[in-house]
Amino acid sequence: MNDTVSSVILRLGERAGIAARRLVGAQTAQKNLALETIAGRLEKAQADIIAANRADVAAACERRLDAAAVERLELNEKRIKAMADGLREVAALPDPVGEISGLTYRPSGIQVGRMRVPLGVIGIIYESRPNVTADAAALCLKSGNACILRGGSEAIHSNRAIAAIIRAGLLEAGLPEDSVSLVDTTDRNAVGELLRLDKYIDVIVPRGGKSLIERIMAESRIPVIKHLDGICHVYIDDKADIDKALSIALNAKTQRYGVCNAMETLLIAEGIAAAVLPPLAEQLRAKGVELRGCEQTRSLLSGCMAATEEDWATEYLAPILAIRIVNDIEEAMAHIQLYGSHHTDAIVTEDYSRARRFLREVDSSSVMVNASTRFADGFEYGLGAEIGISTDKLHARGPVGLEGLTTQKFIVLGDGQVRA
Amino acid sequence: MNDTVSSVILRLGERAGIAARRLVGAQTAQKNLALETIAGRLEKAQADIIAANRADVAAACERRLDAAAVERLELNEKRIKAMADGLREVAALPDPVGEISGLTYRPSGIQVGRMRVPLGVIGIIYESRPNVTADAAALCLKSGNACILRGGSEAIHSNRAIAAIIRAGLLEAGLPEDSVSLVDTTDRNAVGELLRLDKYIDVIVPRGGKSLIERIMAESRIPVIKHLDGICHVYIDDKADIDKALSIALNAKTQRYGVCNAMETLLIAEGIAAAVLPPLAEQLRAKGVELRGCEQTRSLLSGCMAATEEDWATEYLAPILAIRIVNDIEEAMAHIQLYGSHHTDAIVTEDYSRARRFLREVDSSSVMVNASTRFADGFEYGLGAEIGISTDKLHARGPVGLEGLTTQKFIVLGDGQVRA
Repeated sequence: MNDTVSSVILRLGERAGIAARRLVGAQTAQKNLALETIAGRLEKAQADIIAANRADVAAACERRLDAAAVERLELNEKRIKAMADGLREVAALPDPVGEISGLTYRPSGIQVGRMRVPLGVIGIIYESRPNVTADAAALCLKSGNACILRGGSEAIHSNRAIAAIIRAGLLEAGLPEDSVSLVDTTDRNAVGELLRLDKYIDVIVPRGGKSLIERIMAESRIPVIKHLDGICHVYIDDKADIDKALSIALNAKTQRYGVCNAMETLLIAEGIAAAVLPPLAEQLRAKGVELRGCEQTRSLLSGCMAATEEDWATEYLAPILAIRIVNDIEEAMAHIQLYGSHHTDAIVTEDYSRARRFLREVDSSSVMVNASTRFADGFEYGLGAEIGISTDKLHARGPVGLEGLTTQKFIVLGDGQVRA
Repeated sequence: MNDTVSSVILRLGERAGIAARRLVGAQTAQKNLALETIAGRLEKAQADIIAANRADVAAACERRLDAAAVERLELNEKRIKAMADGLREVAALPDPVGEISGLTYRPSGIQVGRMRVPLGVIGIIYESRPNVTADAAALCLKSGNACILRGGSEAIHSNRAIAAIIRAGLLEAGLPEDSVSLVDTTDRNAVGELLRLDKYIDVIVPRGGKSLIERIMAESRIPVIKHLDGICHVYIDDKADIDKALSIALNAKTQRYGVCNAMETLLIAEGIAAAVLPPLAEQLRAKGVELRGCEQTRSLLSGCMAATEEDWATEYLAPILAIRIVNDIEEAMAHIQLYGSHHTDAIVTEDYSRARRFLREVDSSSVMVNASTRFADGFEYGLGAEIGISTDKLHARGPVGLEGLTTQKFIVLGDGQVRA
């Protein structure tokens, strides 16, 4: 059995490799045509997709998956329309491939620059949401990469239906259907086989919970672009504008709870805590947020629970906020360094030098001054779309859009120059 | 014993981490001062360094290392001067840290851009040449990174002497001495311990032979920026200018033999082979280069050995050249894809469309038109200095200079904006 999975995955890899080499030379118009064609086909095949999805939903209910998981799994007309629109939006984005930058003459007479090129073959490993099948395929295709998709077994029927439509659309647009392929088995060993396929797969992009990502990091022989969760901080400096501080802290915590760029810990300078915390706590509590504070915080806020060491290191993804009063920016940055997850951290201050220092020294994928952490997002940053948010340092950091799915090579143009 | 090594390495990591956080905020002038100070100290301590080096050389002779290895190990006045000058050259390079690019306003009113920042702590694992100790430390320091250096055991006395001078110079310039530390043990387990220290080390840069690099790739839990050797090709198209073809091929093969950007295989279009090969062979043979060709090549060159399948996949690093006649650019690119090492490949042609196609489709870290592969080099490309040449796709590709030792984070500047 395992041998079969291994040979199935190997074949997927070989074919994706061949498709990737054709995609490098594909014209922008052709890639866009494929995306538009697939979008149209998804809308036309709506009934078939929903029928396939019903089989997944029925199986999920039978296996008593919780309601949230079933909700994530479910496809309806609106969600299929959103998938199709997503493909059209990616078609409308500029093509990153082939961009040449920094092309300058050197003393030897050669011109040296860098050309942006696809990575090659991208392996995407994800969990239940079947719309990822279309979203990820679109980003890979536009950036000139072939992809091998491995979705959750609970969405296998939906993913099969969507992948078949994508492949038919690729063919119709004159591109190799193996530009997008689905691992069409629920055998759990398939993931392990993918992670060993370093001969054919250039990078793995996991999308899912922490345990999935940790397993992939431990097993993969292929570089991984990670999309981890976030323990994001807002630090309210004693030189903060109080109105800005209140609205940023409220927005960062309550605009959405279950997202990786929501604030989980509020740090506040001692000098301004008494002015900010009571009104902020009132507004947060009005929204149903539970507060857990350090000793000093509790002396300002009656009824506030005590925060433990664990709270500083927890990503709640829920209406809970940890609050700590610190001496100054120094102590705030030390706290962020110690407990943060290098995702997104913000300072609220009107002090020029402190803003400048926070920006330079805080080691996170997004560092902000006087803005809500909720802005850490590919669309808000103008990337057009994102495949996730990377907290890695190498290659791609922060929201990863089309550019993050490409690399650069050096190009040299000469007239027969040789080295002296 | 192993426990001791493990705790020694752990301590080095902790201290390097603390130093790295201080280096993020270090001013350019201070880093340059440290480099200049260390350069002066190296020159002043010349006699001590040479004395330490003599102990290494004596041990190497006793262990009967071959003459080339002893030669690489040896330090003399000239080499110490070269090390010091190298440090001064790095001081003169622009500081990549803190550069902000693409800072633009978004519809929400926030400004979003990217800031170039150090990677953090870099682990350098290298073989015999003790000058790497100074070169690598200088590049890491200028790019704002702390580094942990693990040199070859045969150079331990030399490396100790150089590292002590570097650390003294750092202190004198007001920077933490743990910005540069040496793994001061010849215990082989130290490498394994370093490769597991993902809590403190952000990236591993190995410098050495293929077996060292393969071991590191297999063992490392930390991302590796690889510096592999090259099987570089020159493809002479049938639209090539014959004079350019002759001088490029001659230069790419014979300007130096033992380097990763030397040509190892010459591909030549059938239509031009009879005009190019005989005069080229004459010039190559005059330099003592042994030729190994395909059947067609041998029919044009009397006395040419037959190339085997193995020859196409071999990096000779020697005066040997494999030659293959191909139908056209298509077959040339297929050969490069199959046998190449994605290092540096060049086309010689006057045909615009073929040049454009080769540039886009050949998947190597450097792709050239009408220039010698020997130009693939950090100095020739204007990077100022290089820590090696990466054939990876992620993060850094091609010659890796100061920029390759940094990363970027997103920065957001606002006036109190919140997400709608």
